[in-house]
Amino acid sequence: MHVFYSVLQVIKCKAAVAWEYGKPLVTEEIEVAPPEANEVRIKIVATAVCHTDLYHLFEGMETELFPTILGHEAAGIVESVGSGVTEFHPGDKVIPLFINQCRECRFCKSPKTNHCEKGENGGHAKLAFEKSRITCKGKKLMPFMAIGSFSEYILMNQTAVAKIDPAAPLDKVCLIGCAISTGFGAAVNTAKVEAGSTCAVFGLGAVGLAAVMGCKFAGAERIIAVDINPKKAEKAKVFGATDFVNPKDQNKPISEVLAEMTSGGVDYSFECVGNVEVMRSALESSSAAWGVSVIVGWTDRYDFAARPIQLISGRTWKGSLFGGFKGKDGVSEMVRAYLQKKIKVDEFITHTKTLPQINEAIELMKSGQSIRTVLNVSSD
Amino acid sequence: MHVFYSVLQVIKCKAAVAWEYGKPLVTEEIEVAPPEANEVRIKIVATAVCHTDLYHLFEGMETELFPTILGHEAAGIVESVGSGVTEFHPGDKVIPLFINQCRECRFCKSPKTNHCEKGENGGHAKLAFEKSRITCKGKKLMPFMAIGSFSEYILMNQTAVAKIDPAAPLDKVCLIGCAISTGFGAAVNTAKVEAGSTCAVFGLGAVGLAAVMGCKFAGAERIIAVDINPKKAEKAKVFGATDFVNPKDQNKPISEVLAEMTSGGVDYSFECVGNVEVMRSALESSSAAWGVSVIVGWTDRYDFAARPIQLISGRTWKGSLFGGFKGKDGVSEMVRAYLQKKIKVDEFITHTKTLPQINEAIELMKSGQSIRTVLNVSSD
Ligand SMILES: NC(=O)c1ccc[n+]([C@@H]2O[C@H](COP(=O)([O-])OP(=O)(O)OC[C@H]3O[C@@H](n4cnc5c(N)ncnc54)[C@H](O)[C@@H]3O)[C@@H](O)[C@H]2O)c1
Ligand SMILES: NC(=O)c1ccc[n+]([C@@H]2O[C@H](COP(=O)([O-])OP(=O)(O)OC[C@H]3O[C@@H](n4cnc5c(N)ncnc54)[C@H](O)[C@@H]3O)[C@@H](O)[C@H]2O)c1
Ligand SMILES: [Zn+2]
Ligand SMILES: [Zn+2]
Ligand SMILES: [Zn+2]
Ligand SMILES: [Zn+2]
Repeated sequence: MHVFYSVLQVIKCKAAVAWEYGKPLVTEEIEVAPPEANEVRIKIVATAVCHTDLYHLFEGMETELFPTILGHEAAGIVESVGSGVTEFHPGDKVIPLFINQCRECRFCKSPKTNHCEKGENGGHAKLAFEKSRITCKGKKLMPFMAIGSFSEYILMNQTAVAKIDPAAPLDKVCLIGCAISTGFGAAVNTAKVEAGSTCAVFGLGAVGLAAVMGCKFAGAERIIAVDINPKKAEKAKVFGATDFVNPKDQNKPISEVLAEMTSGGVDYSFECVGNVEVMRSALESSSAAWGVSVIVGWTDRYDFAARPIQLISGRTWKGSLFGGFKGKDGVSEMVRAYLQKKIKVDEFITHTKTLPQINEAIELMKSGQSIRTVLNVSSD
Repeated sequence: MHVFYSVLQVIKCKAAVAWEYGKPLVTEEIEVAPPEANEVRIKIVATAVCHTDLYHLFEGMETELFPTILGHEAAGIVESVGSGVTEFHPGDKVIPLFINQCRECRFCKSPKTNHCEKGENGGHAKLAFEKSRITCKGKKLMPFMAIGSFSEYILMNQTAVAKIDPAAPLDKVCLIGCAISTGFGAAVNTAKVEAGSTCAVFGLGAVGLAAVMGCKFAGAERIIAVDINPKKAEKAKVFGATDFVNPKDQNKPISEVLAEMTSGGVDYSFECVGNVEVMRSALESSSAAWGVSVIVGWTDRYDFAARPIQLISGRTWKGSLFGGFKGKDGVSEMVRAYLQKKIKVDEFITHTKTLPQINEAIELMKSGQSIRTVLNVSSD
């Protein structure tokens, strides 16, 4: 049998380029090389802004990893594939992944982790930068989190792409590529919330709200939503929160407030902010006897800390990357759950914009006005 | 039915009194009041020195909690009981507990913890001090950890006493009152070590060696024992260690050494030292994908800390108090396991002395020469 590959061309298209740390993005014409072996080139239909994009742009320590194309919560359609790719075909609806799933390595074969040996290399952002085949004005652009979806086209390794149900609306399910799977999975997979339990979720962006949804899905009886932005209270109830507490309204530490509300602390707590002080508060808000606290928020600037007795007494401190889901399996499953109306997705979307309006979308998140802004990039 | 209680007398007996922080203990005549309601007065037959005693005497922050009688790893015989005590009778062989088990509270009824609401009060050492009915030269003595076993007689609440098999040799099973249950349970109950796994134990006192024994019992394939004292290597092998590493012999961080030895880190690690830097090393020595690290060592002086990514990547940080065993149930079970030769006990004992030789026993531990010194207090 002979397989004929047509000679693939470089695509010239639009992308929002972050030339420098802390600066607004600029819409530019970029060049996206053809997919090489095991690669998939994807036309992005929709992408959303996640706090992790803002972190790299405004808060992170890797200021040398610029220019970059931010964006990692996206959905699109396969445009072309490189040699060795049999799982994907042009026209497939897909979601790019920031964690790989090769299905062959010792991690992929273990039920205990969503690591993948293929991703261990991808993890080295500097290497990905050097090898980037996306350029603008003669300069290499780093695809952020090995995705870089604030662009009309992206290049992905086939181990980091999930094929999804053709019925899925891409301008909605793009959120499953990060926030929804992350928060939901932190509750369901990482903490393994038990029915009848009491939970607290710190930070009510899309990640935290998805954690609230996960707690509810798992049968939690009481879900206390915590945010310093009072505007988040209403939205939290939509996803299942039973209480809302604003730490700024309290005259004692939030952990004491929650301990009093729950006779000694919640069973499960989730940090969905990215602040090491909040990580400690979340731990301290959980029961000394059996509390499980999960770090979801991201910062690489500081250490989190606590006193040994706080764990010795009986608490467990965990962390969750992509909600503990294996990349391909998790995303397909979550898309199915959405189509079967088992999980909410539309309710996370507060704004829609186009790619050239990216800076407005960033501003909406920074100022606490949006949950998720979906950017419609191309028609599907 | 009438029950007659004979009028119980104050007992005058010998004890090693720690009059002041940092000072040698002094053998004194003390007065031990008769047991009140729900109390049990116990004749101590044997007691051992644990690092937690040294911690209170030399390293701790509660320098105001003196004079005290140290000691909490002990075994003895019930001498008399107060009203309301039906579980114990004079002559019963028992082990005093530093965690209560009332069998009635919400904690005792939950399989998820070894807390007990009765112990929540006992936990307030200052209160226990104020209410102490053990005196010397007109001064109240605090029974350390609500036990204070460096004494011929002690007073215990009946919820903090475990009845044990009459066949048990008290000068051996006293170690089950703390170190052996703590380390063994940290592996078996808290970490839930899986058969075929790889483990690392930091600190090879009796607690760490019992953790090694627990890993071996659970079927671990490789058990790496880590200590800065090279004398501990031989003993670790007795309990099942397959490797010994001295961090001082290495020219790179111990976590890197262990990662190289185990292709990426151990499955389970245990901190049995009481040093927050070692707690971090133990965490970092465990697999980023699924490592579980358990803090067993004790310090209340400093915070432990790590970078968020170290948990987000997939690690779990836990702590273990008394190895996660419920007090009464755990001790009776461990004594049975010893009598059935399922666990080792005798091998932890490197020295035996008498109560007046207590300062020598302390010196042996401080200088790293002993694993456990058992003090023979009274004949049984
Ligand atoms: N672990 C993962 O796999 C993963 C994946 C995606 C995002 N993240 C991280 O999750 C976090 C949340 O992302 P998002 O997109 O939902 O962000 P977001 O900015 O939309 O939401 C953060 C929320 O935290 C609230 N907040 C800020 N300070 C607070 C405080 N002290 N106490 C309580 N609430 C506070 C804000 O008001 C806001 O509502 C970020 O740190 C992001 O980087 C982690
Ligand atoms: N969590 C609990 O319920 C519980 C119960 C009992 C004891 N403890 C604690 O467990 C710890 C151990 O108690 P023990 O009686 O076995 O003490 P020990 O003094 O007999 O043993 C401690 C060991 O740690 C080693 N060590 C010291 N610094 C080290 C380092 N940097 N790296 C590696 N090893 C190092 C020492 O050489 C020694 O062998 C203490 O902190 C004690 O307070 C906790
Ligand atoms: Zn994200
Ligand atoms: Zn893999
Ligand atoms: Zn002890
Ligand atoms: Zn109880």
